[in-house]
Amino acid sequence: MNSYRFKIIPLNKFQSIKNLNHNNSIQNFNNIINKRFNHFNAAPKLSLDDVNPRVIKAEYAVRGLIPNKAEELRKKLLRHPNELPFKQIINANIGNPQQLKQKPITFYRSVLSILQNPSLLNDNHDSSSSINYPQDVKDRASKLLKEIGSVGAYSQSQGSLIVRESIAKFITNRDDGALAHPNDIYLTTGASDAVKLVFEVILNGERDNGVLIPIPQYPLYTAAIALKNSTPIPYYLNESDNWSTDPQKIEELVLSSLKFGIKPKILVVINPGNPTGSVLNQDNIKDILQIAAKYGIVIIADEVYQNNVFEGKKFHSFKKILLELQQNRDEFDNVQLVSLHSSSKGVSGECGQRGGYMELIGFNHEILKLFDKLVSISLCPVVTGQALMELITNPPQKGDPSYELFQFETNSIHESYKSKADALYNAFKQLDNIEVQKPQGAMYLFPKILFNERILNASKELNLQPDEFYCLKLLEQTGICVVPGSGFGQVEGTFHVRTTFLPPGNEWIHEWAKFHQNFFKKFS
Amino acid sequence: MNSYRFKIIPLNKFQSIKNLNHNNSIQNFNNIINKRFNHFNAAPKLSLDDVNPRVIKAEYAVRGLIPNKAEELRKKLLRHPNELPFKQIINANIGNPQQLKQKPITFYRSVLSILQNPSLLNDNHDSSSSINYPQDVKDRASKLLKEIGSVGAYSQSQGSLIVRESIAKFITNRDDGALAHPNDIYLTTGASDAVKLVFEVILNGERDNGVLIPIPQYPLYTAAIALKNSTPIPYYLNESDNWSTDPQKIEELVLSSLKFGIKPKILVVINPGNPTGSVLNQDNIKDILQIAAKYGIVIIADEVYQNNVFEGKKFHSFKKILLELQQNRDEFDNVQLVSLHSSSKGVSGECGQRGGYMELIGFNHEILKLFDKLVSISLCPVVTGQALMELITNPPQKGDPSYELFQFETNSIHESYKSKADALYNAFKQLDNIEVQKPQGAMYLFPKILFNERILNASKELNLQPDEFYCLKLLEQTGICVVPGSGFGQVEGTFHVRTTFLPPGNEWIHEWAKFHQNFFKKFS
Repeated sequence: MNSYRFKIIPLNKFQSIKNLNHNNSIQNFNNIINKRFNHFNAAPKLSLDDVNPRVIKAEYAVRGLIPNKAEELRKKLLRHPNELPFKQIINANIGNPQQLKQKPITFYRSVLSILQNPSLLNDNHDSSSSINYPQDVKDRASKLLKEIGSVGAYSQSQGSLIVRESIAKFITNRDDGALAHPNDIYLTTGASDAVKLVFEVILNGERDNGVLIPIPQYPLYTAAIALKNSTPIPYYLNESDNWSTDPQKIEELVLSSLKFGIKPKILVVINPGNPTGSVLNQDNIKDILQIAAKYGIVIIADEVYQNNVFEGKKFHSFKKILLELQQNRDEFDNVQLVSLHSSSKGVSGECGQRGGYMELIGFNHEILKLFDKLVSISLCPVVTGQALMELITNPPQKGDPSYELFQFETNSIHESYKSKADALYNAFKQLDNIEVQKPQGAMYLFPKILFNERILNASKELNLQPDEFYCLKLLEQTGICVVPGSGFGQVEGTFHVRTTFLPPGNEWIHEWAKFHQNFFKKFS
Repeated sequence: MNSYRFKIIPLNKFQSIKNLNHNNSIQNFNNIINKRFNHFNAAPKLSLDDVNPRVIKAEYAVRGLIPNKAEELRKKLLRHPNELPFKQIINANIGNPQQLKQKPITFYRSVLSILQNPSLLNDNHDSSSSINYPQDVKDRASKLLKEIGSVGAYSQSQGSLIVRESIAKFITNRDDGALAHPNDIYLTTGASDAVKLVFEVILNGERDNGVLIPIPQYPLYTAAIALKNSTPIPYYLNESDNWSTDPQKIEELVLSSLKFGIKPKILVVINPGNPTGSVLNQDNIKDILQIAAKYGIVIIADEVYQNNVFEGKKFHSFKKILLELQQNRDEFDNVQLVSLHSSSKGVSGECGQRGGYMELIGFNHEILKLFDKLVSISLCPVVTGQALMELITNPPQKGDPSYELFQFETNSIHESYKSKADALYNAFKQLDNIEVQKPQGAMYLFPKILFNERILNASKELNLQPDEFYCLKLLEQTGICVVPGSGFGQVEGTFHVRTTFLPPGNEWIHEWAKFHQNFFKKFS
């Protein structure tokens, strides 16, 4: 650490400043500091010219123009409940199930309540703080308290060991026995935090570092790329083939980027897809892994929707496919893969608890050490969120007292997702001027809206994108809040909207259908 | 870590191959693979030359060399409890009270347990999920659930309104009525997150942006500066005057930095001090505010220890002093100030809950909009941590059922901090070769160790800084883990250690004293 102080500031600068400290070469120095309250000229406040241009450049549509307008209308509704054509805002703009009245899983919340107040474990029923939780709830809470200690204490920066062990077991089972190791798992504050960590370590902060992102994409990625001053390299998904990837196009992009002096460092894959709701097949995944192997590109596999896959489709983790390839092909031994998961999605929908993890596969030891250092600077991810990831990856088993209720709750949510997705899909299918792919998973539909000339002109007059215009009108007339496709990226000249299928009931779907028909009638 | 990978990969192969047999024969699979891919040359893995040099450069001593060594020894103790000269590791390296058996405040944890499991509110005593919490606990939980909704839902990115309202009231009372506004308050994931947000918005990512930091400092700041590629401008605190600031030196540094083409954008003040444990007086604060006003430098007032101030000293918030100055001095109208607070410190010590907030004072609207956008990209801070900040800033009042216990618990912690600080201080005072300032607040002492030639040479032979050498020996002989002053910065040629005074009991203090005397006897 001797060099530490000199790392603080370049040697030459450091010493010159020190010298200035020790001599009086600035003659007027004593005049610079007048007596404490003499007049001085005040400097102006910061303007946009003074701050980080990368933050100015970053955009995040999920909470952009339309959602902000929705927030305005919500406040207006509170003051004047009858002055708008609807009674409530329907937040279909963000995958936030518990905001839409989805009930938390009883097992998760019972254990977490004990972690917050361990005296709930007292078995003395007269005590003011005892409770008849099922035995497996109490056992799990006791075990976590024993291993983690108080949830009010910092854990290891990488995450508590018992949590990483349960996650490793979960991954091993998921991937048919391909072993996962707790040392490769880092607990994070949701998955967004993991993306920022990987970008921070791997991207050098210069324009010559590129990140391959799917279009459409989840706008966290373009925002994080802008903040890192890196170059986004968009690869378009094939909408007509249910948003599949085209490996040939991706490889061409890699080569042309290199020609332009941009090195693709990271390739982002969102599977199951956000906003597309599609699920990649094994061949897609193999081809992407080959590109990573050939060009030494790190893959971020955003797999936070891995438990949101509908019947008929199967989720294949990138890690499982990679390990299969490595059995037979040495060329795949150097592939470096980051797999993301989160407590926010699946059927838990525990967004506000900010639980998540990333598994780092295939990185050199010296690179893992950088991750260790970086996470240590943030001390640790929220410990209750870590515990929640332990519960999600290590659920009650057949025979446990909590098993039946847990099965009932999780199955009901799975089924309701499927039926809501179908209801929305079928409603769109019956409408004109809208094309939609059959939902395969995740929480979203990304229908294409076919606008006519009159709509394109009307929106141009308002200086809005046509899809923004459509979403704005939908919001103003029905209270339904969805996000324009322009916030996610789409093929030039095509227009989409992203909607979750989470809002309860079907009435909002009917409202949307009615709006859609009137909208196109008005502009026919 | 690579070594275990080599151990497990064959196992992977074995496992996966076994599983492949379920589907089709290995031969068959090889054919599929080989049909799919022609031979290609694999790219190498990332090395340190390929990644972000700023991450390589960043240092974080609080979890650096000595704490890592302590972790090794802890594991060794588990395996061989009798092979070391001590029975346990004493973690005095980090302010983590609940790791050291400090009990959480009952009121906080009772409310949080209900937020995790609202069915605890059921008043039916036969129900398996009802509990006799005091009425004010139930009322507060009900109110928070009504306003926030489920803690599993994303909140507003800035933080839930009811939480920001309670924080604003707390600040207004703290500052003798100087009004705080909920719109200026941003909930954060601890205070570290707030520092990163402010750096991200204000620093442009180039070397010509500078940050004035106290020396000694909390190493989060040098780490965050390195990650932003900015230039640290260290200003030295006056140890002999209980670590006071020297405004002349600071202004001189501002001018000399400008001469070198480095624009000081941010001035960091840690008050009460970490690692120094000192508390700034009003004149110190006024002088710093004058520099900020004159040169348009944003002040980050790291005030997370504002509730950890011992009798005889008073905490003055930068905001209160600023508003006083603005009463009669127009020159202070443009001052831009960020005040940080956290659930980790005070007497709550809820580090793992990752609660915190920042108040943004005096920024232009266009800059606040950038903060709004940046926090929206991370969706929201953990909601239970937000709720905890509401409880901390809006505690039980006289007459409330929880008041007496709350008072008892918080007073006991306050008193134990004071007596522990005094015990450690008095022990150091009686020792030779060590100088220590009287503790005024926070959780730390930062004594200066006076090493002799023989020690300097001995440490040089081991290629260690003398303070590192001292900390390493202290750890190896007593199990006490503290951090070398070199991790915080110190005047060239002086050497310190940072220790918390949190570990329970006095035995560890005697052990340290004994070690210190033997250490210097050995090298006399």
